[in-house]
Amino acid sequence: MTEPTIRPTGIREVTFGPGVTVMTPVNLYECTIGAGCFIGPFVEIQKGVVIGPGCRIQSHAFICELVTIGRDCFISHGAKFVNDTFRGGGPARGDRSRWGATRVGDRVAIGTNATLLPVTICADVVIGAGAVVTRDITEPGFYAGNPARRLRGVEAERS
Amino acid sequence: MTEPTIRPTGIREVTFGPGVTVMTPVNLYECTIGAGCFIGPFVEIQKGVVIGPGCRIQSHAFICELVTIGRDCFISHGAKFVNDTFRGGGPARGDRSRWGATRVGDRVAIGTNATLLPVTICADVVIGAGAVVTRDITEPGFYAGNPARRLRGVEAERS
Amino acid sequence: MTEPTIRPTGIREVTFGPGVTVMTPVNLYECTIGAGCFIGPFVEIQKGVVIGPGCRIQSHAFICELVTIGRDCFISHGAKFVNDTFRGGGPARGDRSRWGATRVGDRVAIGTNATLLPVTICADVVIGAGAVVTRDITEPGFYAGNPARRLRGVEAERS
Repeated sequence: MTEPTIRPTGIREVTFGPGVTVMTPVNLYECTIGAGCFIGPFVEIQKGVVIGPGCRIQSHAFICELVTIGRDCFISHGAKFVNDTFRGGGPARGDRSRWGATRVGDRVAIGTNATLLPVTICADVVIGAGAVVTRDITEPGFYAGNPARRLRGVEAERS
Repeated sequence: MTEPTIRPTGIREVTFGPGVTVMTPVNLYECTIGAGCFIGPFVEIQKGVVIGPGCRIQSHAFICELVTIGRDCFISHGAKFVNDTFRGGGPARGDRSRWGATRVGDRVAIGTNATLLPVTICADVVIGAGAVVTRDITEPGFYAGNPARRLRGVEAERS
Repeated sequence: MTEPTIRPTGIREVTFGPGVTVMTPVNLYECTIGAGCFIGPFVEIQKGVVIGPGCRIQSHAFICELVTIGRDCFISHGAKFVNDTFRGGGPARGDRSRWGATRVGDRVAIGTNATLLPVTICADVVIGAGAVVTRDITEPGFYAGNPARRLRGVEAERS
């Protein structure tokens, strides 16, 4: 019987700002995590990801290569980012020229079990639980559904 | 380089009934888990949660503070609860007055990758895989979709 | 206070082809994993599952009993399979006669956080992120949404 190669997860070559808390087990590698962030258990954050200060990355979240997240964001439990949209009819299989990047602005809250394709999201956006974000979001507000649509402004809700 | 604070997951101050099985790693703390429950791997159950006897909580499930679950329920793989709906335009950041509670009745089955906002669900309800439950459910039956809607009665299916 | 039975996850009675890599922690048992596969962290693969050569099973995926996966497939992060659709109004509670099987053809790509009910999927299919697949797929193409519907052919995209 053949034995597989076992590679334990862990924290490898991560640049942390001061005051970060990490619940283990996690799989974090070659990424940058800003001051005061909290990283929950069962999270994976991949190479090159940059997370601004003051963010919470909750349990079961997955943040892939080519994602940048602003400050004071909240990435809820099970939320996952995508860089490979299978364009061309299948997975890119490591061909990064076929991946897309995601940029999340400051004070963005992403709901539980939400899924984000490669998009740009402006500051002060709220993504509802279970949403699938397939397009850029350029206006603050509350977005939900599959695919995600704008339901209302955030300001209305704040008043 | 700054070092983060590492906090390993585990089982901390949990009240178990007799005959419970837990697959590790999990993150269970300050909660109550009834007799005969099964808790799968990669599960997080937070402070104050009460789970009745005879429940199965499957892998990758997440059960947050303010959730109460009845007896003989089935919480499938990746199903996740929400207490903070970002009302007010963003995360409550620990302000529990802005969280909502969830109460799940007896014999409720919640499908794989389902997401539940703070709601009350009566007994004998089935939530389909991938559903996003955004409103109270007061009538037994089968609910699915995003947002979840009632598709049919459970009794019809039983016959 | 009662103590629960603790069962640590791991790799138990798995038949591996040559050249497999597994990130731990995982929960793999009594299944068959083909040559050259990659298994990410926080994955569970259950008894009797057969995965063909050259597949990637990404972090947080869950593959249940009665699932067979072809060669060169890509199961993305958080994608989960279902064998118990709660027909009869609730969980089968171990009564396998009420479970359904899933067969995935070769070169199928399943998107992040997708959920698959017991279905047959032909070769060369792409399932979008966040999709919920409720019916058999007999024609190559790109399927997305909840429930998943065919959006376009794969060939068009390849040209």
